[in-house]
Amino acid sequence: MARGVTPVTPEDGLTTRQRRHQPLVIVHTGNGKGKSTAAFGLALRGWHQGWSIGVFQFVKSAKWRIGEQAALEALGRVHDDTGAGGPVEWHKMGAGWSWSRKSGTEEDHAAQAAEGWAEVRRRLTDRTHTLYVLDEFTYPLTWGWIDVDEVVATLTERPGYQHVIITGRDCDPRVIEIADLVTEMTKIKHPFDEGRPGQKGIEW
Amino acid sequence: MARGVTPVTPEDGLTTRQRRHQPLVIVHTGNGKGKSTAAFGLALRGWHQGWSIGVFQFVKSAKWRIGEQAALEALGRVHDDTGAGGPVEWHKMGAGWSWSRKSGTEEDHAAQAAEGWAEVRRRLTDRTHTLYVLDEFTYPLTWGWIDVDEVVATLTERPGYQHVIITGRDCDPRVIEIADLVTEMTKIKHPFDEGRPGQKGIEW
Repeated sequence: MARGVTPVTPEDGLTTRQRRHQPLVIVHTGNGKGKSTAAFGLALRGWHQGWSIGVFQFVKSAKWRIGEQAALEALGRVHDDTGAGGPVEWHKMGAGWSWSRKSGTEEDHAAQAAEGWAEVRRRLTDRTHTLYVLDEFTYPLTWGWIDVDEVVATLTERPGYQHVIITGRDCDPRVIEIADLVTEMTKIKHPFDEGRPGQKGIEW
Repeated sequence: MARGVTPVTPEDGLTTRQRRHQPLVIVHTGNGKGKSTAAFGLALRGWHQGWSIGVFQFVKSAKWRIGEQAALEALGRVHDDTGAGGPVEWHKMGAGWSWSRKSGTEEDHAAQAAEGWAEVRRRLTDRTHTLYVLDEFTYPLTWGWIDVDEVVATLTERPGYQHVIITGRDCDPRVIEIADLVTEMTKIKHPFDEGRPGQKGIEW
């Protein structure tokens, strides 16, 4: 898929080879499962290319991605030990964040989110990583904790060859607009709807 | 998400703890990206749980999942060397398969697909793995190379605690029917549509 002749040839003055090396903004949105898991699956490909990978986890709790974190950090150690693959950094933006914006803590969460984004922005300027996973990043945008126009400007103007994957429901249309690749994950059926709770290894 | 109180409580005579340990059939379908990548992302969680993971790759070419294969096999070696995580096996069902069913080779591909499924069925009977990724498995079903009703019966009657993830477009409704968790990946925007070809680290 997507490797043969493209349906249109853009008049951008680039060669096919150059177009094969354009940095992408990728968005995984929608109410279904697989948004983050697909981002971490993509990170496996980037790891194999030897890319530096930075994961920035905008979630309420440390435990939800523990499997992916353990696996990707193990791959980072494989790189450190053997030189295979690429290095991996995993950053959690505060274990205490809440989806529900509990009263009394909202302000701290907003500050943490802004601080996290400021760090990502610095790294984009410094070209620290080749692949950034901004996990659940749509929520602080929706909640007004991070300025969407500033994110759009930073992503649009980022230098060099840096891919950015953003995950989360209800992605702001301004981010969709500048994204290169957008996939919506739609829930067709989920055991939770039938009264079956989440389970180890599947939900976390 | 999906970890608190469920919207309904099923009258299945099971405790919540038992329901947390039910084996799932998971389907990732739709025309968008992320079906396979999300499956491999889930495999990271399973790996962290120490599960035995078996990947069965029903695809045309060996090169398409090379990054995921390299990363998951590296994780399997981490398990072998340190005991962390779980073991990983990766099986390719013939490097010569073709999406386009080129004349002259179709019969071989059908036989290879059937042989691959027979092996998966044996392993399900033997409870070889805890997580099976049947990548691009919908296609041999669609093409009539593997009998859908037999797959449905085998999955429904599989013993023990074995999760099965099936990926691919146009999943047969009979498989959707018996699946526990179904997500559709929908393409909203893809650089290929704008004349930008696939690229290393992103498409493969």
